[in-house]
Amino acid sequence: MSEPLRLGIAGLGTVGIGVVKIVRQHAALLAARTGREIVISAISARDKSKDRGVSLSGYSWENDPVSLATRADVDVFVELIGGDEGPAKNAVEAALAAGKEVVTANKALLAIHGQALAETAEAHDRALRYEAAVAGGIPVIKSLTEGLAGNDITRVMGVMNGSCNYILTRMETAGLSYQEVFAEADGLGYLEADPQLDVGGIDAAHKLAILASLAFGTRVDFDGITLEGIDRVSIEDIRAAADMGYKIKLLGVAQKTGRGLEQRMQPCLVPDSSPLGQLEGGTNMVVLEGDAVGQIVLRGPGAGEGPTASAVMADVCDIAKGMRTPVFGIPSAQLTGSTPARTQLPAPYYLRMSLDDKPGALAKVAKVLGEAGVSIDRMRQYGHEDTSAPVLIVTHKTTRDALDTALAAMDGTDVLSGAPVALRIEAV
Amino acid sequence: MSEPLRLGIAGLGTVGIGVVKIVRQHAALLAARTGREIVISAISARDKSKDRGVSLSGYSWENDPVSLATRADVDVFVELIGGDEGPAKNAVEAALAAGKEVVTANKALLAIHGQALAETAEAHDRALRYEAAVAGGIPVIKSLTEGLAGNDITRVMGVMNGSCNYILTRMETAGLSYQEVFAEADGLGYLEADPQLDVGGIDAAHKLAILASLAFGTRVDFDGITLEGIDRVSIEDIRAAADMGYKIKLLGVAQKTGRGLEQRMQPCLVPDSSPLGQLEGGTNMVVLEGDAVGQIVLRGPGAGEGPTASAVMADVCDIAKGMRTPVFGIPSAQLTGSTPARTQLPAPYYLRMSLDDKPGALAKVAKVLGEAGVSIDRMRQYGHEDTSAPVLIVTHKTTRDALDTALAAMDGTDVLSGAPVALRIEAV
Repeated sequence: MSEPLRLGIAGLGTVGIGVVKIVRQHAALLAARTGREIVISAISARDKSKDRGVSLSGYSWENDPVSLATRADVDVFVELIGGDEGPAKNAVEAALAAGKEVVTANKALLAIHGQALAETAEAHDRALRYEAAVAGGIPVIKSLTEGLAGNDITRVMGVMNGSCNYILTRMETAGLSYQEVFAEADGLGYLEADPQLDVGGIDAAHKLAILASLAFGTRVDFDGITLEGIDRVSIEDIRAAADMGYKIKLLGVAQKTGRGLEQRMQPCLVPDSSPLGQLEGGTNMVVLEGDAVGQIVLRGPGAGEGPTASAVMADVCDIAKGMRTPVFGIPSAQLTGSTPARTQLPAPYYLRMSLDDKPGALAKVAKVLGEAGVSIDRMRQYGHEDTSAPVLIVTHKTTRDALDTALAAMDGTDVLSGAPVALRIEAV
Repeated sequence: MSEPLRLGIAGLGTVGIGVVKIVRQHAALLAARTGREIVISAISARDKSKDRGVSLSGYSWENDPVSLATRADVDVFVELIGGDEGPAKNAVEAALAAGKEVVTANKALLAIHGQALAETAEAHDRALRYEAAVAGGIPVIKSLTEGLAGNDITRVMGVMNGSCNYILTRMETAGLSYQEVFAEADGLGYLEADPQLDVGGIDAAHKLAILASLAFGTRVDFDGITLEGIDRVSIEDIRAAADMGYKIKLLGVAQKTGRGLEQRMQPCLVPDSSPLGQLEGGTNMVVLEGDAVGQIVLRGPGAGEGPTASAVMADVCDIAKGMRTPVFGIPSAQLTGSTPARTQLPAPYYLRMSLDDKPGALAKVAKVLGEAGVSIDRMRQYGHEDTSAPVLIVTHKTTRDALDTALAAMDGTDVLSGAPVALRIEAV
């Protein structure tokens, strides 16, 4: 058996402690699977005195993660601090510069600084791995880059923020408003300290940017993502979508188009009988599509001590076995810049509007849609007691430009109360 | 860039041709991902003259797969012949003995001769990989052995024969009998030349045996599987199960128990709202459970040219990158013999019976169940026009032994027409 693989772990929150537990409890299993003993040399966190429920006295302590990252007795620096600047970034850079392998769960770091870090890692011929950064315990990066290595990837998409999916599911099942469920989730500690990272879609978009780079061989481009959070999703839309056979999900989609790379994170409708439509609560799901394999769907826990630590350990075990793969699937010098697609690929859209209850109102709406080239697939008008009628429309496939033209023209018809809601329907 | 990796492909059916197409069409992509050019040196099949829709004139031809396997210009022998004896086995053995790496899609070969082949591969320090052997295009072996490497695996299960799932789904949606749908599927070419491999559960059991070995570090033990096919599943049971909120699936389950390794492939009920319950048609699904990660669900195409070739190419790319992993996840010498569990872990059961329409009949059935220690969770008796009433019972969790005692005692009550149907309800 080879020399032991020595870890230095920075960040001892739930995930860090989860990693410590696995290394201890499964020492024999890990050695059998990797051919090497995996040990922890040193650890680092902000507060040394905090009781973390496991004894850490056998490990050297460093107050400074950079010092930990560059210790002579550390082969793999495990970064579980988080954040795209500051100590996490400094320590990862220091570790790579010192010739260490790096494993991180830090999606923001990779999404923002991935290209530069990949270049550094490859210049030093060291691994920089981050399975835990995307969809928690689901081995999605491994499946995409290794399991589907024979495929030209055509689309990746997924529900990758459990808190948002929890909120949307809870709104539907309890019939509560977004504001009510948001307050509830925040009170239960389900949301990040800055909840906008969750409900604004930023956290999920970090993950999408990483997946897009891996899928399409493009430089990671977080800024190229069309981003919309869930804060404007109403219980009315959830109910109306259900009535038309759909669920509303915060869905990330990346695909190559003839006019550039399309990356979007936005509330979308998906058929309620599809795997994505059936995904409830805090679970994550990623869909990978390739020209040879067709469609693969991966489902599992997207967060939490055990699942995230499981993903960290997958990377550690690969490093122990000597597996070496370019940071973004192909050498960083070969990653291409991507032009963000100016417009989204055509899709059907869901429209909800309040139509004044007077003769010819619906005709006016239908007319502006027709004039913009948007044709109607299905339409429902509901009974009502006040002076405006709820109307739902599912369009045939159309461009967002044509739809925006129609929406602007509707504004001039004078038969609507308020602005219509328009949501994309994603083919899954 | 390193030297090209040279393949020799034996077997040019749909999968073999699928591999040829990927190697050709994605040459640049494969080189970028693996750091090596991947080329085909030589090929072999039974009929050289057959038109396979692609030009094969650039490759050397061998009539004998053993000759192909041992050619000096072949680094990786790709075995796509099939069958657990004869040319496939001979050629794989010859390849390993000649120091070649081997990639195969042959589940029967691995399930029956896996241990011996693993020993041979490891003695020669060569890879023997078979991602395509289990669940087609789904990267399940990679997810299990590498993605969940930090976990003690607690259970693996899945629907791994698309033809059986197609038949069961079609019975339900069309309201047809097993015999009718079997004939239909056979006519459409959906079944193996020996249909018993599909409907008898043998093909799926080969896959289960492989997964169990990978999951639990045990020697592959196909004979230890409790095996029951779908030929006795009736449309009445499919309808009755649906009425109680379940679907019937040919489900493979492997788990460690205190009394040995439990491996079974049998028709089971699963909740219709679960991912397994929602799986329709020919798609495959594998569920992996580990102590850290919880539950991961993988869904995708289990067969076909593109998906199977995709899995073969995943193995080829790993070999090109120099990844080396023991054949069954840990060195073959460390794989342990497993005692097949004599009895299955307790579970709730579904019972369907025809009860004579006379006073006290139901009481007699309830009494024998109670005496055997089997308690009733839910019961439904249906309206009827003849002299016997359809009765469905869902029991609380019970042992198969207790249930068998109750079923035997029911036989003596004289209030049933025919034997009751008993199916396990799997917690998923």
